[in-house]
Amino acid sequence: MDTNNLQYYLDTLKKLNFSDMYNNDFFLTWEKSDDELKALFTVADALRNLRERNISTKIFDSGLGISLFRDNSTRTRFSFASACNLLGLEVQDLDEGKSQIAHGETVRETANMISFMADVIGIRDDMYIGKGNAYMHAVSEAVQQGNKDGVLEQRPTLVNLQCDIDHPTQCCADLLHCIHEFGGAEKLKGKKVAMTWAYSPSYGKPLSVPQGVIGLFTRLGMDVVLAHPEGYEIMPEVEEVARKNAAASGGSFTKVNSMAEAFKGADIVYPKSWAPFAAMEERTELYGNGDFDGIKALEKRLLAQNAEHKDWECTEELMKLTGDGSDAWRSPIGNADGNHGQAMYLHCLPADITDVSCEAGEVAASVFDRYRTPLYKQASFKPYIIAAMIFLAKVKDPAATLKMLEERGTLRKLL
Amino acid sequence: MDTNNLQYYLDTLKKLNFSDMYNNDFFLTWEKSDDELKALFTVADALRNLRERNISTKIFDSGLGISLFRDNSTRTRFSFASACNLLGLEVQDLDEGKSQIAHGETVRETANMISFMADVIGIRDDMYIGKGNAYMHAVSEAVQQGNKDGVLEQRPTLVNLQCDIDHPTQCCADLLHCIHEFGGAEKLKGKKVAMTWAYSPSYGKPLSVPQGVIGLFTRLGMDVVLAHPEGYEIMPEVEEVARKNAAASGGSFTKVNSMAEAFKGADIVYPKSWAPFAAMEERTELYGNGDFDGIKALEKRLLAQNAEHKDWECTEELMKLTGDGSDAWRSPIGNADGNHGQAMYLHCLPADITDVSCEAGEVAASVFDRYRTPLYKQASFKPYIIAAMIFLAKVKDPAATLKMLEERGTLRKLL
Amino acid sequence: MDTNNLQYYLDTLKKLNFSDMYNNDFFLTWEKSDDELKALFTVADALRNLRERNISTKIFDSGLGISLFRDNSTRTRFSFASACNLLGLEVQDLDEGKSQIAHGETVRETANMISFMADVIGIRDDMYIGKGNAYMHAVSEAVQQGNKDGVLEQRPTLVNLQCDIDHPTQCCADLLHCIHEFGGAEKLKGKKVAMTWAYSPSYGKPLSVPQGVIGLFTRLGMDVVLAHPEGYEIMPEVEEVARKNAAASGGSFTKVNSMAEAFKGADIVYPKSWAPFAAMEERTELYGNGDFDGIKALEKRLLAQNAEHKDWECTEELMKLTGDGSDAWRSPIGNADGNHGQAMYLHCLPADITDVSCEAGEVAASVFDRYRTPLYKQASFKPYIIAAMIFLAKVKDPAATLKMLEERGTLRKLL
Repeated sequence: MDTNNLQYYLDTLKKLNFSDMYNNDFFLTWEKSDDELKALFTVADALRNLRERNISTKIFDSGLGISLFRDNSTRTRFSFASACNLLGLEVQDLDEGKSQIAHGETVRETANMISFMADVIGIRDDMYIGKGNAYMHAVSEAVQQGNKDGVLEQRPTLVNLQCDIDHPTQCCADLLHCIHEFGGAEKLKGKKVAMTWAYSPSYGKPLSVPQGVIGLFTRLGMDVVLAHPEGYEIMPEVEEVARKNAAASGGSFTKVNSMAEAFKGADIVYPKSWAPFAAMEERTELYGNGDFDGIKALEKRLLAQNAEHKDWECTEELMKLTGDGSDAWRSPIGNADGNHGQAMYLHCLPADITDVSCEAGEVAASVFDRYRTPLYKQASFKPYIIAAMIFLAKVKDPAATLKMLEERGTLRKLL
Repeated sequence: MDTNNLQYYLDTLKKLNFSDMYNNDFFLTWEKSDDELKALFTVADALRNLRERNISTKIFDSGLGISLFRDNSTRTRFSFASACNLLGLEVQDLDEGKSQIAHGETVRETANMISFMADVIGIRDDMYIGKGNAYMHAVSEAVQQGNKDGVLEQRPTLVNLQCDIDHPTQCCADLLHCIHEFGGAEKLKGKKVAMTWAYSPSYGKPLSVPQGVIGLFTRLGMDVVLAHPEGYEIMPEVEEVARKNAAASGGSFTKVNSMAEAFKGADIVYPKSWAPFAAMEERTELYGNGDFDGIKALEKRLLAQNAEHKDWECTEELMKLTGDGSDAWRSPIGNADGNHGQAMYLHCLPADITDVSCEAGEVAASVFDRYRTPLYKQASFKPYIIAAMIFLAKVKDPAATLKMLEERGTLRKLL
Repeated sequence: MDTNNLQYYLDTLKKLNFSDMYNNDFFLTWEKSDDELKALFTVADALRNLRERNISTKIFDSGLGISLFRDNSTRTRFSFASACNLLGLEVQDLDEGKSQIAHGETVRETANMISFMADVIGIRDDMYIGKGNAYMHAVSEAVQQGNKDGVLEQRPTLVNLQCDIDHPTQCCADLLHCIHEFGGAEKLKGKKVAMTWAYSPSYGKPLSVPQGVIGLFTRLGMDVVLAHPEGYEIMPEVEEVARKNAAASGGSFTKVNSMAEAFKGADIVYPKSWAPFAAMEERTELYGNGDFDGIKALEKRLLAQNAEHKDWECTEELMKLTGDGSDAWRSPIGNADGNHGQAMYLHCLPADITDVSCEAGEVAASVFDRYRTPLYKQASFKPYIIAAMIFLAKVKDPAATLKMLEERGTLRKLL
């Protein structure tokens, strides 16, 4: 297997059935088949292969990539911009504050009005339970209808840049990183992943990362453990997804209320704060009723609840429980002895680092520092994941088009 | 006539005299000759023809399109971005809040400082009577002078994205939509258009759309009726333009104070709220004097005045007065019997829809819903109208360049 | 010498040693050798030569140019956008307000997270003494490390768009303008430049322009005079740089406390307001301590101090002391008699113009008006200077690549 050779990726693609991704959207990873996820990873790697060899991957000569961020974002914003740019689309941000949307126009109308020359629409809407994913579907249906009605010349692809349920661009980047670090998807089978809650002084972080992780990593025959203090439950529907995935892939999905138990012998740990699902539902309702005093009271309660669990921190001591406990983590790639030391530490970033970004946080500074470079590499897959999502939705025969891009050989940058 | 064939548009262009559009601006439709407007529509259709056939229309390899929005905008903002992108220009928004313009620098200076690599400047400045159009002229004169002085290597074209007098990109898109729906400009001759005021809970909407419509639709030999309650007069200069246009084109321009009268037998209705010209003038003066209490009092008065005219709503009952009154509107294209049912309903969007975006508004929900798809199609012409304005200002021999683009055959998107 | 011929610039480049600019940053002009600055000016002129001949200078097929403005900006913002666009990069602005940076993440992390597909990062951070330049270095080191670690596929080049110490893109544009106006760098030898403080009703303007000017113009054997009222001292380290430069180039660097003395016989005058270095240091400390009452008190004191020096205005009377005093300035180019009249007036813009942008300011309206066109030309060099900084950092053999661009002959705009 020569992963430096584009042909390797083309051969992989030929064995997969992913034709439904063409002219389609990307909402949740568990709505995609195993072959479709493999195709996603393969195209992401192939695009990276071409760019690393200074070969342009522009498939658009013109066209817009629309972004709509209903929550702050740096990483995902720049990843989406990078992905669009890599393929030849110009990013146009829909800033709801500068628009006339407050006028009271419908989602259907706005979606069409911004899409006359849009090939992709990327949306982050993760703040309110039951709203974000639904909004994305409403936008997608609107532009599909617009395309059918002859209003839009093309069907813009919707890419979920984080909703209330899943964060597919993040979790797919996380997994592709693991695939690379462990030397292949098949090497992940039987590995233990600890997706655990961790303390943060910030009280209302979205559920989409833990949900996305247990919904995706259970696809590969891994032993996925979800750990959190009592009261920090996530959406039960997603736990059900994880359970079914694990059963189908020959892995397992279990729940514990102890960080230590989750960490024990883990190959991968993902300690990260989130807000209780029930509290997020409550907040959505309070917000819907315009009950801002209620929201303030809820915030206060949540902060107090969080503060009871400051011991949920990814410390050096806890890390010693992971892997074979021998010492710091070493990537298994190139480790002839098979000894992988401590678990690989993942985070979607930014992390709340104790004594760095806050007094007490999700992770000890020394642990975070040790994993800094792999963490940044983990993040580096996101632009390629997004680009692959767009590519697969826009190109009828991805293998042929990738081959053509290589043969065309346009330089990304003159030397 | 084969409108799917680019040659049709090239042949049309060859018969027209529009050489003055080269290296020029677009402020008001009535400053353009009939041939120039025909050229605008023809180039817009030709660009759409090429894009629909997946042929790139990029005429710029680099260059900036500067946008300046002094009022909220979604549609026009994205239309301008789409048009620039379609031709190869990158949009750079001049956000006056982030700039040093508050320092007190002159229009002339700012205009030059942002234009070193600008090929087009699009401005929306519609809030203050006597100001918006004047500002655009000041910017245009500044960059023309800069170009003459050797400061700017090219002359940026100014495109009016809505001023206090006209909204040419909107009204030309509206008209091009009608031309398509009725099957040609010549089919519009003798048709009745009702440009009427309608109630909205928002009190200060610009005058540029009604003014733009009566100034443009009177060019085609149509019977244009302007209807509004007493006290909602528009700029008298523009009424004079409409009168002259009608006389020259063999149509008519009349004024009534009844929505029903305007709707009677109309082929096209355009019910839309606006603020009285006199009130807008007053507001401009109050604003100039920094009299914010005066502005608040004026707003209150205007809202009360509006509320007296809630019956100016485009209802099903009123729609039955239009056309031949038989039933809902059917596009005349392909209607062998020539029966076109009710009038075509136009709106620049977003509309104030009763029971949807407000309690009582410009139009009944059932009427709006029936026309939703044609309304979105109407809007879809705006990017092409803007692109055509830029194209005609930048390309010396548009027919030859369009032909060349077809022959070059660069794909807009790889398949 | 045929400056209309690209070959002239290629021949010039061949004589220079500037290989260290490749894969490097641009922080301060005095960190660059004479040859490197000559290469910068030569490439800027060559890029302008190509664009003026409608030849595309795109060296990137995709890639991002990241901008981060921690202070308002119009000119530099649009110059950076123009430069990136000219070379084929899409600008993506890092708006710290819309990002998650407030979360407390480190500079190192943010720098990497935005840079996966970034070829250049342009930063303006000029408000706090000891902070801006240091921040730029931190960003540069972070992305260099990221590139070494395999996180970033390329090393983004850092371009200083104004820091607390220097404003290299401005001062290099200023100097390139002078080189053109005087007919060559060698013609500037022995010319007198007066960099003088001027009164402004705004109290806290950055020091980077006066510091940048004395640090750069002293490189060419000019007699550079720095003039300001007592108490308006600039950073002593930069004065030391100017002194050393002058000694090495055969020019001089002197300080006076009189505008008239500085203007006497000057060939170039640059009257511009700035805040005292000591006050800026004080403000940085107050800001660090969160002492906002202290900042208000300081502002009041500074405004009062400024008001004592309203006579530091570039008036017609003062201008008559400059040059040979004969009459208004005439460009020496093409003046057979060698008589150049009054001094050339420079400003980085926007200027505080008496009776135009304020009651009393840096310059009399009649003086400013007389120099308006050359001032705008001065500004027009900035996009090319920035583009040249990027070009030299990204292209291994700039002369060869420039030649190749000419031979490729892609039109910037179809005709």
